[in-house]
Order: sequence, then C-alpha cells, then structure tokens
Amino acid sequence: MPTYHIEMMEGRTIEQKKKLVAEITRVTVEVLGGSPDSVDILITDVKRENWATGGVLWTEPRS
Amino acid sequence: MPTYHIEMMEGRTIEQKKKLVAEITRVTVEVLGGSPDSVDILITDVKRENWATGGVLWTEPRS
Amino acid sequence: MPTYHIEMMEGRTIEQKKKLVAEITRVTVEVLGGSPDSVDILITDVKRENWATGGVLWTEPRS
Amino acid sequence: MPTYHIEMMEGRTIEQKKKLVAEITRVTVEVLGGSPDSVDILITDVKRENWATGGVLWTEPRS
Amino acid sequence: MPTYHIEMMEGRTIEQKKKLVAEITRVTVEVLGGSPDSVDILITDVKRENWATGGVLWTEPRS
Amino acid sequence: MPTYHIEMMEGRTIEQKKKLVAEITRVTVEVLGGSPDSVDILITDVKRENWATGGVLWTEPRS
Repeated sequence: MPTYHIEMMEGRTIEQKKKLVAEITRVTVEVLGGSPDSVDILITDVKRENWATGGVLWTEPRS
Repeated sequence: MPTYHIEMMEGRTIEQKKKLVAEITRVTVEVLGGSPDSVDILITDVKRENWATGGVLWTEPRS
Repeated sequence: MPTYHIEMMEGRTIEQKKKLVAEITRVTVEVLGGSPDSVDILITDVKRENWATGGVLWTEPRS
Repeated sequence: MPTYHIEMMEGRTIEQKKKLVAEITRVTVEVLGGSPDSVDILITDVKRENWATGGVLWTEPRS
Repeated sequence: MPTYHIEMMEGRTIEQKKKLVAEITRVTVEVLGGSPDSVDILITDVKRENWATGGVLWTEPRS
Repeated sequence: MPTYHIEMMEGRTIEQKKKLVAEITRVTVEVLGGSPDSVDILITDVKRENWATGGVLWTEPRS
C-alpha cells in the first residue's frame, strides 16, 4: 500500500522510468514486505521553469 | 476549507470533471458541514507512462 | 485508480471520516466508472497552527 | 531544507515566476534562518478545467 | 488562489510560522496580484526520522 | 534532484526507514545518474483511520 510520488526534472526516457519503478517496487517489498501489487508510484515531470533552488529557477545560468 | 487533490489517469472529459467536482462538493458539505465555497478541488491528469502499479508502468501490457 | 488526498482542519470524528470516504467513493464510481476497490483516499488532519488564509494562521482571531 | 509546492492557475509569465521564487526564498531565510540553497520551490501550473471552487470548475462562468 | 504547501523540519515556533505566512502572502500578492484572502498556505512539520537526503535520515550523524 | 514522497501505513521501525531510504537513493542514482546528495525523500506515516480503499477506512474489518 505504500504510495510514492516522484518529482524529477523532465527529460527522462520511458526506459529509465520503467527501470526506476521496477527497482523502487523491488526494494520496497524487500524492506517493508507486502506484495508488489500494493505499491503505487506516480511520477511528475517538472519543467525547468517550475523548479527553483536557492531562489533561482533552473532555466537560469547558475554561478 | 477542505482541499482535495485528485489524481486520475488522463482521458476524462470535461463533462465528467464537472459532474465529479459538483458531487464531491455536495457530499463534503453534507458530511462535514460548512459552505460549498470553502471546498477546493484540484485535479491532476496523470499520463499512463507516469503511473506504475506492481512495478510496471500503465503503458505496458499487464498479464 | 483515482487517488484522493483530502486536507481538512483537525477535529472530524471517525464517523464523519467513514461516511465521507464511503460517499466520495460512491460518487467517483458513478461518474468515472471502475470498481470501488480502485479508489484510494488519504486524509490529512491539519492543525490550525499549520493553515493560513489571507496571511493569518487559523489559530488567530479573524476580523 | 524547506520545500515549497505552489499551485497556481496557469498563465503566469517566467518573469513573475523568477521574481516570486526569489522573494519566497528571501523571506524564508529571513524568518527561518538557514541558507538560500536549502530552499527548494516547485511550481504547478493548474489548468482552469482542473480547479474547482464551490463545486464549479474555473472554466465555467461564475455568478 | 495560489495554494502553498511548505514542508519543513519540525521545531519552528508559532511566531516563526505567523511571520512566515504573513510574508509569503505579502510577496505573492505583490508579484502575482490578486487579494491576500485568495492565498492559502499549509505547513507540514516533518520529523527528522521522516526526511532523508543522500540516502541518510536526518536523525543520523552526518559526515 | 529527484524528490520522493512516500506515504505508508504507520508502524514501520526506524530500521526499516533507514534501509528503505538508503536503497531508494541507491537505485535512483543507478537509473537516473546524479549524486546521492541530490535525492530527497520525505516519508508520511499515515494512520489507519486516514486511509480508505474501496470506500472503507483501514480501521474497519475487511470482508
């Protein structure tokens, strides 16, 4: 029943997402028990103009 | 003041969303009291490539 | 598969929560189709000191 | 380390986002201490058809 | 109508929260326009055992 | 920079959380690249009275 939300910068391939959700599910079941079917994972692809660190959007050059 | 976030697979029509938010708001006021105007609902349309159950993305065929 | 997150001010009874999740699930299946078992609902009880509207926490007297 | 999620109606310019994240980060450091680099901000641009108040989507005329 | 969620390590005082929500609301209205009453802010106090960076919980000593 | 939110039923031990965040971070770096320090994970322990599936809270007996 664990539910994951993953926010990551846009641009990952479907192959990366496939592998990531398989691995996350595997380690979750290993550590917490339960069945793989009880693990839900939702990914959000975040645009660079919508993520800021240190007060600066990731569309900007960083010093 | 209750605030809802609804994540659902993309592809619902505007008519379905209209009806869903009206009904959710109605039952919320019925059960919790308060005014309809205090109920906010935000919907996220999730792409199949961004939702996994059992370690498999919903773009994949399921056995 | 729709997943709901409901944030509401703390203080609701279990009876209210029971009724609310039953009703939300019922209207969701009515409007979107699918089976009730595919509907997950997570509630967050928010403390008054952790919610602000108009720049003022809900622990404060409101004019 | 504070992490912000801001949901707002779509349509803001990059200039507004730039200014907003700079200001949010500045006031956060002023009030909570810590370094600007520890502040992350994620923005979600919400479509009008995905936000409802009072049981009515923001695509609808409001009385 | 912007809605903020702020996650921060537990331990901030009510005074800090009061000041933070007032300032966040002020800069939001300055940059985006609209009325202060349309700004909602929800704070989550996160326990150190529930936040990890670099694969290590914040309850652990950091090298 | 990926940021994880994990919602799970309350009752996991600190040892389980330690192991889970270490493993999640490891597989994330393996699949997406980047440094472990860029991975943040926030856990929410959800009470049984705050999670419903099929319209029924997890405090209730299930048929």
